[in-house]
Amino acid sequence: MRISQLFAPTLREVPAEAEIISHRLMLRAGMIRKATSGMYSYLPLAQKSLRKISDIVRDEMNRAGGQEVGLPIVQPAELWMESGRWYVYGDEMFRLRDRHQRDFCLGPTHEEIITTLVRGEVHSYRQLPLLLYQIQNKYRDERRPRFGLMRCREFIMKDLYSFDTDEAGMDISYKKMHEAYSRIFTRLGLDYRVVEADSGAIGGSSSHEFMVTAGSGEAAIVYCDSCGYAANVEKAETEPENLQSELSPMPLELVKTPGVKTAEDVAAYFEIAVSDVIKTLFYQTDQGVIAVLIRGDRNVNETKLQNLLGCLWLELAGDSSVKEATGCAVGSVGPIGLKEIRIIADAEIISLKRAVVGANKEDCHYRNAQPGRDFSWNTAGDVRNIESSDVCPRCGSEISFARGIEVGHIFKLGSKYSSVLNAAYLDEKGQEQTMVMGCYGIGVSRTLAAAVEQNNDENGIIWPIPIAPYHVTVVPVSWQDEQQRAIAEKLYQDLLAAGIEVLLDDRNERAGVKFKDADLIGLPYRLTIGKKAVLENLVEVKERRSGQVDFVAMDEIVGYIKSAVEPVAPDS
Amino acid sequence: MRISQLFAPTLREVPAEAEIISHRLMLRAGMIRKATSGMYSYLPLAQKSLRKISDIVRDEMNRAGGQEVGLPIVQPAELWMESGRWYVYGDEMFRLRDRHQRDFCLGPTHEEIITTLVRGEVHSYRQLPLLLYQIQNKYRDERRPRFGLMRCREFIMKDLYSFDTDEAGMDISYKKMHEAYSRIFTRLGLDYRVVEADSGAIGGSSSHEFMVTAGSGEAAIVYCDSCGYAANVEKAETEPENLQSELSPMPLELVKTPGVKTAEDVAAYFEIAVSDVIKTLFYQTDQGVIAVLIRGDRNVNETKLQNLLGCLWLELAGDSSVKEATGCAVGSVGPIGLKEIRIIADAEIISLKRAVVGANKEDCHYRNAQPGRDFSWNTAGDVRNIESSDVCPRCGSEISFARGIEVGHIFKLGSKYSSVLNAAYLDEKGQEQTMVMGCYGIGVSRTLAAAVEQNNDENGIIWPIPIAPYHVTVVPVSWQDEQQRAIAEKLYQDLLAAGIEVLLDDRNERAGVKFKDADLIGLPYRLTIGKKAVLENLVEVKERRSGQVDFVAMDEIVGYIKSAVEPVAPDS
Repeated sequence: MRISQLFAPTLREVPAEAEIISHRLMLRAGMIRKATSGMYSYLPLAQKSLRKISDIVRDEMNRAGGQEVGLPIVQPAELWMESGRWYVYGDEMFRLRDRHQRDFCLGPTHEEIITTLVRGEVHSYRQLPLLLYQIQNKYRDERRPRFGLMRCREFIMKDLYSFDTDEAGMDISYKKMHEAYSRIFTRLGLDYRVVEADSGAIGGSSSHEFMVTAGSGEAAIVYCDSCGYAANVEKAETEPENLQSELSPMPLELVKTPGVKTAEDVAAYFEIAVSDVIKTLFYQTDQGVIAVLIRGDRNVNETKLQNLLGCLWLELAGDSSVKEATGCAVGSVGPIGLKEIRIIADAEIISLKRAVVGANKEDCHYRNAQPGRDFSWNTAGDVRNIESSDVCPRCGSEISFARGIEVGHIFKLGSKYSSVLNAAYLDEKGQEQTMVMGCYGIGVSRTLAAAVEQNNDENGIIWPIPIAPYHVTVVPVSWQDEQQRAIAEKLYQDLLAAGIEVLLDDRNERAGVKFKDADLIGLPYRLTIGKKAVLENLVEVKERRSGQVDFVAMDEIVGYIKSAVEPVAPDS
Repeated sequence: MRISQLFAPTLREVPAEAEIISHRLMLRAGMIRKATSGMYSYLPLAQKSLRKISDIVRDEMNRAGGQEVGLPIVQPAELWMESGRWYVYGDEMFRLRDRHQRDFCLGPTHEEIITTLVRGEVHSYRQLPLLLYQIQNKYRDERRPRFGLMRCREFIMKDLYSFDTDEAGMDISYKKMHEAYSRIFTRLGLDYRVVEADSGAIGGSSSHEFMVTAGSGEAAIVYCDSCGYAANVEKAETEPENLQSELSPMPLELVKTPGVKTAEDVAAYFEIAVSDVIKTLFYQTDQGVIAVLIRGDRNVNETKLQNLLGCLWLELAGDSSVKEATGCAVGSVGPIGLKEIRIIADAEIISLKRAVVGANKEDCHYRNAQPGRDFSWNTAGDVRNIESSDVCPRCGSEISFARGIEVGHIFKLGSKYSSVLNAAYLDEKGQEQTMVMGCYGIGVSRTLAAAVEQNNDENGIIWPIPIAPYHVTVVPVSWQDEQQRAIAEKLYQDLLAAGIEVLLDDRNERAGVKFKDADLIGLPYRLTIGKKAVLENLVEVKERRSGQVDFVAMDEIVGYIKSAVEPVAPDS
């Protein structure tokens, strides 16, 4: 493709709206343009990379036994009413009515439609397992769409659904997908980690996320180099620390604490460690207001808390709600004498012997509070975030933290959807059984953004070869120079003939402008045709990633590039 | 792919809902399933054929200089308000609101979004021409979705938009697309005709449709074998016939015609030809009620009428509206003395000298009415359908009629959208000019249905090789027979290794069932492994289209199939 004809309007200015690097660079490189909040047009360079990602994904889904289908984006409400999710999905679901006033939604996911399709066609164990997938737009009306392609309201996903006769079958399908996903992200040329994840609203018993590592990633990951454990921080289990195990209990004592509010204030006032304070936090949930007891130096993990409660939503209660529920201001609330409110204790506080807690009296705290003796709770469990002081929950070794971008997520759904939607089959004995499902997603458009987020420098994008929109740019230093132009044209044609994807910068621009654009767009190789090409038959080859410059003889350059960009065959 | 694992649930029964053959066969062959009215799930066989169609379309769009983009399906209402189409698109547009109560639609077409994208990025004649396309779902909330994939509410389209500096440029882009479309439908292996078409609601100056010929097609086509003229009947021009040119005028005469209502009744009563009667028909339009004068043996062409009037919609007025407008019952209305109603005369009636017309008096007609002498009209023009008695409007030769399915439509839009949306550029002199556009659509999912509609017999589908989901089915007569199974397995692997797309019927079914399914699914070749294979190393090859059976030596069969299914290279 000649750059003079390519629709890739590059920008010199950094658009003000773009907060993260991938968003800035994809706008600047003329890859995407915003149509409206959370909805983007993919311009030709983005479209080409998206196609390469999709092709690799499709290839690996087929290899793992997946069959591609195309399911409706516009889905009838009845299916969602049958599963119950019509009523709980909330504002994130785009809803619409047709000319007959019938309700529909734009599919945020496709469990309902695929499960009802399969239940209508599959009746025997002989038709299972079945792995069906599609690559298609999905819709979620995010409260705050942002970060370019990272968090959109319209985005491209690959979603595969597995149907098996039993849990053992599901485990095999899950393993196949785990392997396929690993192969996919390897083939895409990305650094990634597989982490244990929370199943969230989709539900099910087990789940892993595939995270492209990047400092700007929204997700925090914890991992252990000793045993290989890795998890989303939302999910990572913790071991309770036994800080006061050496101490003996002391009598409870009420202390006046005027103006003392936060756990840090309390610790300073009592001249103790923050870890000796128990914080009492209140949450509004769909099950009513609840209280959480947690060590003063810890943070509540709301995902764990939600899972422990089994509630649909929760949020930190405002000061006035706390006052209404307890009769006391936020800074002095505590578990002793707290009535008619469900109390959740983080497992770590149970072993404390001499804790300081709020007294439920204005400007008062108790010293030497002992859980179990002085107050009780309804439920105890791990509801805190893992911290850098924690150890690996598997092997006890040191842990490390990283940030990542979730690009893939696999779930063991079990019979969550198949039972409520009645997807059954007859087993070998003619008995009716419920199918066992898994679901497996890859954010295709998000993967594109994650690739840019992970691969860039101050000059622009550095494409991994497998998903670069083109492999190489041919840049004649001066398009006006007839000799350079002739050499560039010939090289362009030779590269095309060799099956290499090539851009020819045929613009009548200064060399500096062309080099800047080449760096910004970030193809793996830039071939410069200058005086050395005219006089010595040498092409300047610049590798975008390393910045390394070589001079290669004209008659060797096509072979040189071809071997450099050829995909490494994935191991079978 | 092994058929035991393939998700293609075939049906023996013809589903009651399916009216046309492609719908019946695609349901029966397990290719599609209805999700809800006008929305279908594409099962793996359909998905594979759709991909082949898309790949050929993409290849030819790229060859013609098109660049692929991906535009939002969910489009902000503001863009459609800017073009004005938000207010005129009516019920066919799916509309929705997001969580902030902002209005959106599901794109029925993408002129608004692509034109505003291009106006933001293209500012110089040097950036033109630009040909941008996408392959994507489109949405139209049809009043009566039907005929399976033929008339859906959610369907797959390729749409390309061309932007040029002037009309001459647009003509070049249009010609490129005309040629690309011809190559596409040739490569797809379909019989098709290119016909002149009406530009309809999209607008613009010139337009052609690509019609897959099929007896069940919704569209009527007229064509001339002498000069090559071909047009949609909606569009086909007519030459007025001069029936009464030899006659001299006679005095107007009022005649009592009790109980005489239709043109045929009138002709019989007066003992004249129906062509000597002038019918007066009334239409409700957005411009008010209008009357149309047309020969008794002709039919009004509503598309031509709408274009002549320049109105947004029209429909035949009911009897009561006619009575209200004229004060007379439908059977006796006529142009003489008709007041305050706009009258459109079909060009053909003007030369009549002794016509019979309604008298606007109950049970009365006039004899010897002469247009111009006895009554006048506001506008005259060609508003009738072409008939088999007509001649070619280009060369005067005999014409023929056929039916077809519209699978492609190309339009010269001119500056219809670019002027209202202000898509301008600076020309070589620095003057601002409006871009000149074209748009070009292919119904990808409809093309699949059209292919089936054109290629089938009583036993099932007969796939054209280029879009067959697989090339060949290997059917061992008995899967229980170890020798047959071993031969079939080896042949299956050999064919796969040769890059042939093959199904292996590994089901433990009777041979009759397997043969019936093979015919129904309709792959180009069936290879049967029976006794002859075991005893004589001969494979039975059945060509689906001709039904011809050959026996081919085992060591030649892969080469035989490979050369049979290899695509013919399109001429460059």
